[in-house]
Amino acid sequence: MTQTSTARLMDGTGPARRIVERSAARAAWISRETGTPPCLATVLVGDDPASVTYVRMKRARCEKAGIASRHVGLPATTTTAELVDAVTALSRDPGVHGILLQHPAGPHIDERAAFEAIAPHKDVDGLTLHSFAAKSFGLPGFASCTPGGIMRLLAEYDVELTGRHAVVVGRSAILGRPVGMMLLAGDATVTYCHSRTADLASIVRQADILVAAVGRPRFIRGEDVKPGAVVIDAGYNPGNVGDVDFETARTRASLITPVPGGVGPMTIAVLLEQTVDAAARQLGLDPGAGVG
Amino acid sequence: MTQTSTARLMDGTGPARRIVERSAARAAWISRETGTPPCLATVLVGDDPASVTYVRMKRARCEKAGIASRHVGLPATTTTAELVDAVTALSRDPGVHGILLQHPAGPHIDERAAFEAIAPHKDVDGLTLHSFAAKSFGLPGFASCTPGGIMRLLAEYDVELTGRHAVVVGRSAILGRPVGMMLLAGDATVTYCHSRTADLASIVRQADILVAAVGRPRFIRGEDVKPGAVVIDAGYNPGNVGDVDFETARTRASLITPVPGGVGPMTIAVLLEQTVDAAARQLGLDPGAGVG
Repeated sequence: MTQTSTARLMDGTGPARRIVERSAARAAWISRETGTPPCLATVLVGDDPASVTYVRMKRARCEKAGIASRHVGLPATTTTAELVDAVTALSRDPGVHGILLQHPAGPHIDERAAFEAIAPHKDVDGLTLHSFAAKSFGLPGFASCTPGGIMRLLAEYDVELTGRHAVVVGRSAILGRPVGMMLLAGDATVTYCHSRTADLASIVRQADILVAAVGRPRFIRGEDVKPGAVVIDAGYNPGNVGDVDFETARTRASLITPVPGGVGPMTIAVLLEQTVDAAARQLGLDPGAGVG
Repeated sequence: MTQTSTARLMDGTGPARRIVERSAARAAWISRETGTPPCLATVLVGDDPASVTYVRMKRARCEKAGIASRHVGLPATTTTAELVDAVTALSRDPGVHGILLQHPAGPHIDERAAFEAIAPHKDVDGLTLHSFAAKSFGLPGFASCTPGGIMRLLAEYDVELTGRHAVVVGRSAILGRPVGMMLLAGDATVTYCHSRTADLASIVRQADILVAAVGRPRFIRGEDVKPGAVVIDAGYNPGNVGDVDFETARTRASLITPVPGGVGPMTIAVLLEQTVDAAARQLGLDPGAGVG
């Protein structure tokens, strides 16, 4: 007799679709009310094929939701000063409501300087220092999109955060650090683990909520998942493999995100939603209104 | 036969004195080089006796170190808009190099708006969103003074951070949250506990480095301190009592801060040092130079 149970899947595609549909309805309302559709500016330095694909996909998703996009493609030889100037111009342009600077901008670029040229009220990708700190303190502001998507997914599945031990594996500026701060603002007890953590397994085993954000295939062993844990796999490695060993983890978790189809779809949905919010505010509409 | 040992005390007074002496020497150098001493502006709303005393003490410590201070006292009836205007004026005033807005500004004031009026390059008390995020990512910037003092104290006592489990009890915007982020930037594994944490003792017992920042007398029991742990008590409660039960904790810890004389003196030392750094930069001097 085995005790194997199977976790419920935390599907991200359904919730993401609902967010996108609502954003599209609000984008249409903004266009009707003001004569101007929300507009996302995308900035890409160089022609890295993956980055070109990402930007194209994001723009296509915008168009489909009734969000205009404006692309600024810069040569790989662009300097930090030139990139800062280009982003600053978009920050000042009243026709642009959100700015997405595609990472990586290139090894010779001071990316932090470039991101900081994004005006906080247009930082719909949530990557400025201001946005990170605002969300860390539970203040209004734009979330880094993947962490924001994770928080929405947890809410969607009624996962209680208060007092529960959330373990975040990974501490990147766009994912691990902000999601930990958002979980803390949501009253979870939060532990950050990373490449220098001494005994990762012993900490992972304590996680009521586990967020894997390392970018290493099957890095988290299923046997280390606490029985009944909620497992959020934000990894997306070649071959559609996450950071968690899904097949063993699902026998212990209560809820687990699939890869793909879990966190991924939420990320782009949050980007669209935040772009629409930014546009509503900048165009003088009540961001809470518009969908009946 | 007992196994009781006694922790070494982490004295903050000696390291703080050295930081203040170095800051005073650099302030004198700045005055000689530019004809202008570093200047800290202090802003106080109302006449809360504790706040009046704090501000007076900070100004006295500045004067003693050769740092000029300028005080802006505002009536308790001051509105958020008036306070923001006053702080904005100081942010623009080239004669002011650092700005300290004394907390609390009053229940009717939007403190976040007021703090955000401090220009990042004058935020020597380290309380803006920009400063929090910069230190969270290990970037140059001003530390919130108590967390900055704690990090200096750990360095002073050669406490290894890499891979060690640091547990921060408390998550305030000026202490718990930033010190955890700084410990993470220093490669520690970091856990945040707080009032909603389910089983505090079991987490405290895992701490190689324990930072108590709750403001409740003897809240951390000595018996929960891991043998050999480094204990940083940032609490300062009536009767010179910290957040940790010192007498029992010292029998288990390897290093422990006394209260008073541990973290406290480091806080003001960091404020003075950051004011001098800010002045050096704004006056066009190399902030790394000036003390031979």
